[in-house]
Amino acid sequence: MIRFECDYGEGAHPKVMELLQSTNLEQTPGYGCDPWCEKAGELIREACDAPDAEVHFVVGGTQANLMVIASILRPFEGAVSASTGHIHVHETGAVEATGHKILALPEKDGKITAEQVETCLREYEESTTIEHVVKPGIVYLSQPTEYGTVYHKGELEAISKVCRAHGVPLFVDGARLAYALAAEDNDITLPDMARLCDIFYIGGTKVGCLFGEAVVFASKRYADGFRMTMKQRGGMLAKGRLLGVQFSALFTDGLYERMGKHADDLAMKVKKALKSKGIPLYYESSTNQQFCIMTEEQYDRLSKDYSFSDNGPVEGGRLIRICTSWATREEDVDRLVADIKNL
Amino acid sequence: MIRFECDYGEGAHPKVMELLQSTNLEQTPGYGCDPWCEKAGELIREACDAPDAEVHFVVGGTQANLMVIASILRPFEGAVSASTGHIHVHETGAVEATGHKILALPEKDGKITAEQVETCLREYEESTTIEHVVKPGIVYLSQPTEYGTVYHKGELEAISKVCRAHGVPLFVDGARLAYALAAEDNDITLPDMARLCDIFYIGGTKVGCLFGEAVVFASKRYADGFRMTMKQRGGMLAKGRLLGVQFSALFTDGLYERMGKHADDLAMKVKKALKSKGIPLYYESSTNQQFCIMTEEQYDRLSKDYSFSDNGPVEGGRLIRICTSWATREEDVDRLVADIKNL
Amino acid sequence: MIRFECDYGEGAHPKVMELLQSTNLEQTPGYGCDPWCEKAGELIREACDAPDAEVHFVVGGTQANLMVIASILRPFEGAVSASTGHIHVHETGAVEATGHKILALPEKDGKITAEQVETCLREYEESTTIEHVVKPGIVYLSQPTEYGTVYHKGELEAISKVCRAHGVPLFVDGARLAYALAAEDNDITLPDMARLCDIFYIGGTKVGCLFGEAVVFASKRYADGFRMTMKQRGGMLAKGRLLGVQFSALFTDGLYERMGKHADDLAMKVKKALKSKGIPLYYESSTNQQFCIMTEEQYDRLSKDYSFSDNGPVEGGRLIRICTSWATREEDVDRLVADIKNL
Amino acid sequence: MIRFECDYGEGAHPKVMELLQSTNLEQTPGYGCDPWCEKAGELIREACDAPDAEVHFVVGGTQANLMVIASILRPFEGAVSASTGHIHVHETGAVEATGHKILALPEKDGKITAEQVETCLREYEESTTIEHVVKPGIVYLSQPTEYGTVYHKGELEAISKVCRAHGVPLFVDGARLAYALAAEDNDITLPDMARLCDIFYIGGTKVGCLFGEAVVFASKRYADGFRMTMKQRGGMLAKGRLLGVQFSALFTDGLYERMGKHADDLAMKVKKALKSKGIPLYYESSTNQQFCIMTEEQYDRLSKDYSFSDNGPVEGGRLIRICTSWATREEDVDRLVADIKNL
Repeated sequence: MIRFECDYGEGAHPKVMELLQSTNLEQTPGYGCDPWCEKAGELIREACDAPDAEVHFVVGGTQANLMVIASILRPFEGAVSASTGHIHVHETGAVEATGHKILALPEKDGKITAEQVETCLREYEESTTIEHVVKPGIVYLSQPTEYGTVYHKGELEAISKVCRAHGVPLFVDGARLAYALAAEDNDITLPDMARLCDIFYIGGTKVGCLFGEAVVFASKRYADGFRMTMKQRGGMLAKGRLLGVQFSALFTDGLYERMGKHADDLAMKVKKALKSKGIPLYYESSTNQQFCIMTEEQYDRLSKDYSFSDNGPVEGGRLIRICTSWATREEDVDRLVADIKNL
Repeated sequence: MIRFECDYGEGAHPKVMELLQSTNLEQTPGYGCDPWCEKAGELIREACDAPDAEVHFVVGGTQANLMVIASILRPFEGAVSASTGHIHVHETGAVEATGHKILALPEKDGKITAEQVETCLREYEESTTIEHVVKPGIVYLSQPTEYGTVYHKGELEAISKVCRAHGVPLFVDGARLAYALAAEDNDITLPDMARLCDIFYIGGTKVGCLFGEAVVFASKRYADGFRMTMKQRGGMLAKGRLLGVQFSALFTDGLYERMGKHADDLAMKVKKALKSKGIPLYYESSTNQQFCIMTEEQYDRLSKDYSFSDNGPVEGGRLIRICTSWATREEDVDRLVADIKNL
Repeated sequence: MIRFECDYGEGAHPKVMELLQSTNLEQTPGYGCDPWCEKAGELIREACDAPDAEVHFVVGGTQANLMVIASILRPFEGAVSASTGHIHVHETGAVEATGHKILALPEKDGKITAEQVETCLREYEESTTIEHVVKPGIVYLSQPTEYGTVYHKGELEAISKVCRAHGVPLFVDGARLAYALAAEDNDITLPDMARLCDIFYIGGTKVGCLFGEAVVFASKRYADGFRMTMKQRGGMLAKGRLLGVQFSALFTDGLYERMGKHADDLAMKVKKALKSKGIPLYYESSTNQQFCIMTEEQYDRLSKDYSFSDNGPVEGGRLIRICTSWATREEDVDRLVADIKNL
Repeated sequence: MIRFECDYGEGAHPKVMELLQSTNLEQTPGYGCDPWCEKAGELIREACDAPDAEVHFVVGGTQANLMVIASILRPFEGAVSASTGHIHVHETGAVEATGHKILALPEKDGKITAEQVETCLREYEESTTIEHVVKPGIVYLSQPTEYGTVYHKGELEAISKVCRAHGVPLFVDGARLAYALAAEDNDITLPDMARLCDIFYIGGTKVGCLFGEAVVFASKRYADGFRMTMKQRGGMLAKGRLLGVQFSALFTDGLYERMGKHADDLAMKVKKALKSKGIPLYYESSTNQQFCIMTEEQYDRLSKDYSFSDNGPVEGGRLIRICTSWATREEDVDRLVADIKNL
């Protein structure tokens, strides 16, 4: 059984394991106040061309999301998100458990637009019953989205502009950011992210780390109190240096970028095979997740050798997600491609 | 200026004030443990033909909603509601502030259907990622809805049946319940409410009380711990007997029913006038709230003498709510009707 | 049975009822945006000599406490309180339910000192593990305390000075404030309260209102967002004008002061009788609550005609609270005094 | 500089790293539903002689504490803890942030007694104002305590008996459990833990893992919904198998026990040296943490070569914690012992 069901099926990239191993018996202070976190933060600031950014490391994506939002919002504020946003549908109400509503906007291909955000923020400001409704206090996007699509620079610039005009911070969930950065249709760089977002995170869990996300506060003022929130929410790792070590490996010799490209390249092979075979794509994804509609028969035949993520019945068959990652082996993809052809 | 903008513009019905006055210097224990709350509870149990129901009195509707939901749900559960539900759009995130998500369903005329509820509950149960999504733990409706429409008995029976089949309690917000009970197209009685709902409340704030809602736990087991929640959430009135006194007045000599009918009768006069004049109704409401689309000119002319609730521009003009209540004077309605005719 | 068990056993002062009655059918906007709230706020600002203060009205004391604290604190901050503070022991964890810890300090006669507060704030600031402990974000006192004792001006000034030196707001719970203001050993005026506290409230529930507390934000900046919190926490009364009406009555012709003096004078009669009889006082209270140690026999004999608050066995007998109020009748106190003499 | 300041200064035990390395590229399902977690759970059930126990793995101790408590308590319930309990003083209000109060009891050497717990639970049950106080809903202990002392079997049995008599679960924080199990005065085994506690956790972070705590629900019914809470609170690791792998290593060939013994043996060497030198011990600890009072001069001299945890000035000098761990090297301890002798 070859697994294409997710991008967190393996451990860590060998380079990451190597550095964890070689530093294993170093003695460092705890809770992220160690030289490795310092170094990794510095490497990330450089990669983002953001010398003033503040970088904090947390264990996972749900943690990153709930902690950033809980730390920044006032009690009567909520988070604007696409109705398909991870925080809205896949985190068991993690944000609400911190007391905050998610203000869900209709999406297209997993994306929301600057116009929608503008309308949402303006409607609040113009409301005559302002005390009865939740104030939009942060705007949350994912790059890439849940469906593997990417925001393009013009789109992100427009959303960023709206947010700043209304004084609302923009927060981008980059759990799979490497796979957006490497997409063939991507035109957004890490420095663009730091320039346009107030807060974003660089995902490690799904891109070569055992675990870990680097939360970048491009607008430093939003980091105020964040370490208290980390500790309070159970997100401050005792051996915080493990995160610093891993991200130091990721941001050395372009490993992060290379892993992104590896996964995307393989995903494009799969996408091409699906298209050739006439298997309809459900979204036009340029990243490591490919969503397609397989007939029951196609799915049954491929499921004998491969595991995918099955999103249930849709018109024309089943909605299947095929997911590559930094760890996917080229020969496995080649075999899958061949088997798709032979369906 | 004659006010039709809401149904909480005046104080209390004279009968209510009279009883508050005549009992004013009685000495009673606090926090709802007094003979008046006992009596009012008994009157309500009788009116509902529900001898086993447990009745608690709270100050307002948002309180009732947040306390019932917070008291019943486990941390990972949420409340199913129409997307127009009061808890979803008009309570500043009160439910989320207690840690719970609202699972919003699309509505039609403010209502959701048994089919929608069934699908929502079943999809959760069949989910393969059950730990990543919020469990629907309570179903919330309003009777009448935000738009003045009413659920009919068949509809409520169907929803109740679905809820019970899935072991999820049904909670009905009856802030304006009197106005549903008196509606010309209504076929649901208080005993029906007690039979079909697990929890519902009988609104007093909008129907003749200074303030107060009677929360009826028709299924007594859901009342477990409710008084602790009341105290914790700031909803346990020190002089709780004020609520008992007021509801005793409401449930004596059919006052509650009469107030409902009074408001609905006057609303029907207004509705008829609007129809005659060709002013389009936005919803087909049979209760005390009438929503219509006035042209800017119509609105400007009537606004000189009357205040309405202005819901902003819609196609064809402005969406205006005209609201009667137990306190509305017939001569004021007659004058409005005449002025509508003369537009 | 004559009741001395609490100060919320009756309804409202006749003057309050009179004004509620005479304004009953006035039509006003809801949610506290009405002329009566405006007027009452103005009367309170005048009484406090605090023209810039912002005044908001809420229904009860637990509500006032939880809403002020939840509105002001950041998530990682807590409230400093005497270990006997109402928020710490009598509100079912209301503050914690909003996510905030109470940092309890040992008390003497219900009071804490400026030195204790200073130590608490300084220890936090000097902590080397600042991210692991709760930040003291507000200081909470009661005037009078749970035991009927009062802070004197020098004490309050010292605490206020410490709070301001550390940038932490001082919040005083004045549920029974009238009874402190009228105490024979009191030297603090309402203008002193407004000068020394950042936020305090003037209790109505226990001093002549049906219900209601006037929250005075002497330091206006702490009021930011408070109305949103009011709505979110279920503390925004639909017919908010009822609060404005009642407090207008209280602050007309010195009614508030007179009610305080009435209760305290009668309490002093009781205190004198207890002392004469040699019944030990548990606290040296100058306000409407008197705590004493009765033998079982004494308690049994008096309990035939009077109800008190029984705080359970202590060395020497039972700890009994005798409580007067604005509504206590002089003849009832005289009878009690006589019966104490005859024990 | 040799570090004795904490027991989480290094990475993981070589055996743990070895297994992480050798399994690194295995493909497994995520979120703890993998063969390694299954295996580790089985090993722990065996070690605890508790075939029915349910075991869940989380990343850290604060997470374990807040998730167990938030998952089990109803909203109006709180956690009973020693006033020195980690949840009360070192977790930035993590429990309160989930809405629950901590009911702190005075401690002696970090411990509370069955009598204290009994009184606390009984007082609640006998309270006449039950709705106004927080219900003790869980009892929290640490083994060993914050001060390195251990509960003995008789003590734990007595507390367990009280808890069960009152229907309140007993939860033991075992962040350093190995160091208690190996203590020379310890008489409690893992099967005792499973027999006497309802929930406890076996700490990995401080005992040879990179991170991780194994939460053992000895009373399975308290595990209901725990995985939802894990996800909601950000404590469900995507690559959950990393926890299973690590705990599999710990519970193979007695590694967990050996690491505990290693640290305790070295700590006893230090303790003996301190005693010989006449440096007063602050607590009589038999585990890996030794607290003593050094003079400023002693501290200054040793600080040149060693780092300790400095708990500030106390009578007679400074309160210093010296901490050994699974990773402490014997030669480092020998050098410290020699330097203590030569002070």
